[in-house]
Amino acid sequence: MDIVSGGKLAAAVSEAGGLGLLGGGYGDGDWIEREWERAGNARIGCGFITWSLANRPHVLERALARQPAAVMLSFGDPRPFAAAIRNAGARLICQVQTVSQAREAAEAGADVIVAQGTEAGGHGMSEPLFALLPQVIDACPGALVVAAGGIADGRGLAAVLMLGAQGALMGTRFYASQEAVGHPEAKRRIAEAEGGQTVRSIVFDLSRRMRWPAPYTGRLLRNRHAETWLGRESELEARMEEVGREYAAARERGDFDVAGVIAGEGCALIHDIPPAAEIVERISAEAERLIRSHASTFS
Amino acid sequence: MDIVSGGKLAAAVSEAGGLGLLGGGYGDGDWIEREWERAGNARIGCGFITWSLANRPHVLERALARQPAAVMLSFGDPRPFAAAIRNAGARLICQVQTVSQAREAAEAGADVIVAQGTEAGGHGMSEPLFALLPQVIDACPGALVVAAGGIADGRGLAAVLMLGAQGALMGTRFYASQEAVGHPEAKRRIAEAEGGQTVRSIVFDLSRRMRWPAPYTGRLLRNRHAETWLGRESELEARMEEVGREYAAARERGDFDVAGVIAGEGCALIHDIPPAAEIVERISAEAERLIRSHASTFS
Repeated sequence: MDIVSGGKLAAAVSEAGGLGLLGGGYGDGDWIEREWERAGNARIGCGFITWSLANRPHVLERALARQPAAVMLSFGDPRPFAAAIRNAGARLICQVQTVSQAREAAEAGADVIVAQGTEAGGHGMSEPLFALLPQVIDACPGALVVAAGGIADGRGLAAVLMLGAQGALMGTRFYASQEAVGHPEAKRRIAEAEGGQTVRSIVFDLSRRMRWPAPYTGRLLRNRHAETWLGRESELEARMEEVGREYAAARERGDFDVAGVIAGEGCALIHDIPPAAEIVERISAEAERLIRSHASTFS
Repeated sequence: MDIVSGGKLAAAVSEAGGLGLLGGGYGDGDWIEREWERAGNARIGCGFITWSLANRPHVLERALARQPAAVMLSFGDPRPFAAAIRNAGARLICQVQTVSQAREAAEAGADVIVAQGTEAGGHGMSEPLFALLPQVIDACPGALVVAAGGIADGRGLAAVLMLGAQGALMGTRFYASQEAVGHPEAKRRIAEAEGGQTVRSIVFDLSRRMRWPAPYTGRLLRNRHAETWLGRESELEARMEEVGREYAAARERGDFDVAGVIAGEGCALIHDIPPAAEIVERISAEAERLIRSHASTFS
């Protein structure tokens, strides 16, 4: 969730009984320390984009100095960082998009493996959660596996528990929360989006003059800018400087017909912008109610 | 499942407590009547490709004369056939790939709406089941919704029940059954496939000189032929006659490095080729065990 998940949101999730993670993203040490202050005494963790962290490993040291409950690494090889994270007393969470990445994470000593389906907002790959999750569980016997991508209510949590996950990681659902550091218009668009209104592509990264390593792509709400450039990625890359300037200006003025709103397919299930604690409580209660209710149908 | 689901398989599924459907496919009246004989006295239904049935509506009359439990229509407008199906005393099952199709099916009076995720084998669209299913349920209050795509074990059945489905439709799992009318080598490849070994594309349809209406594509096991042509669909279309002859010959001789094996993402969860009744019993029992077990964790 990058900087959308600041200290206030992470603290609210942890205080409600979840594990809140700061969106360490590409790795800005000053931002991380400032947001850690905002989290107060809450026991939180921090996530990083692994390939970016590899270019600024000192940022990990600054995060570990805050005694995080856990560090989550996504999109890259976790092995260079695993020992430092464990030695600092933090749990290592590795987010993966394929079965082979899951095996590598288990070998790296991950305490938690997050199996992220293509439904997820932001960066990811192409495998749907329903196919990926049980395969990851079968490939990593004994591992603690958590599901991500498309989960936004108690139905989704109960479903991934049945598939064998021990829990769920949610981004988009918490973007549409009171505490998230997001533009009110971006939150409003998530709460109002219907099904099929997101798209996974490289248009967003090219538009902000950012090149991600293949095969990662980013899922965002479809908007006018996405419709303009989808299928014309080569042309966009050739005109990246010009389009990038216009795009940056649109972000500045909060014009979300051009600027992208990062969101997963779960946005279709999100219709409000409540406090984060209410989200945690509502989803937990709904999942429990569903499981109890189905169990009661057996004689 | 087209002709892979003949009378023996449909009967075995119905006799085990499920609802077996003949794969009426494009609509061959003689095949349907022959396979209905093979089903004996079992109470079964029949599925059709709707846009193809529209070109030969008399085939529906022949199927309805057998007093099917249900007729399933997939890929096209069900409305021209709804009244005849209901008047014959059969239930109307409509398989859909989008929320708007689900609304149309509800308006057409569907008794059951099958929400088919992109994980499914054979023809389908792009929306993952985990995102599509709860959206269909929310869009069609009161409808009886069944999930399809990627479900091959009790975990998947329990999961879709939590998402709000009333049941699951499974194809690939029953392809790898004793009773399916499939080449032993095709069944073996399904049972041995791992994750990520299927692909959704138009290569298969072009190779058998068949043009499906957009936006439907077909999911099959990746093989040498698929790797050769993926991304070169325009060239394949231009050379369709020549490639089509080679492809037809490969199908004749059972060469599945060229001929396609239709399979969904659930193939990664399939490791054996048991009798169909054992599949029904195993999946039901596993789903019940999982739901009971999770419910018992609540105090």
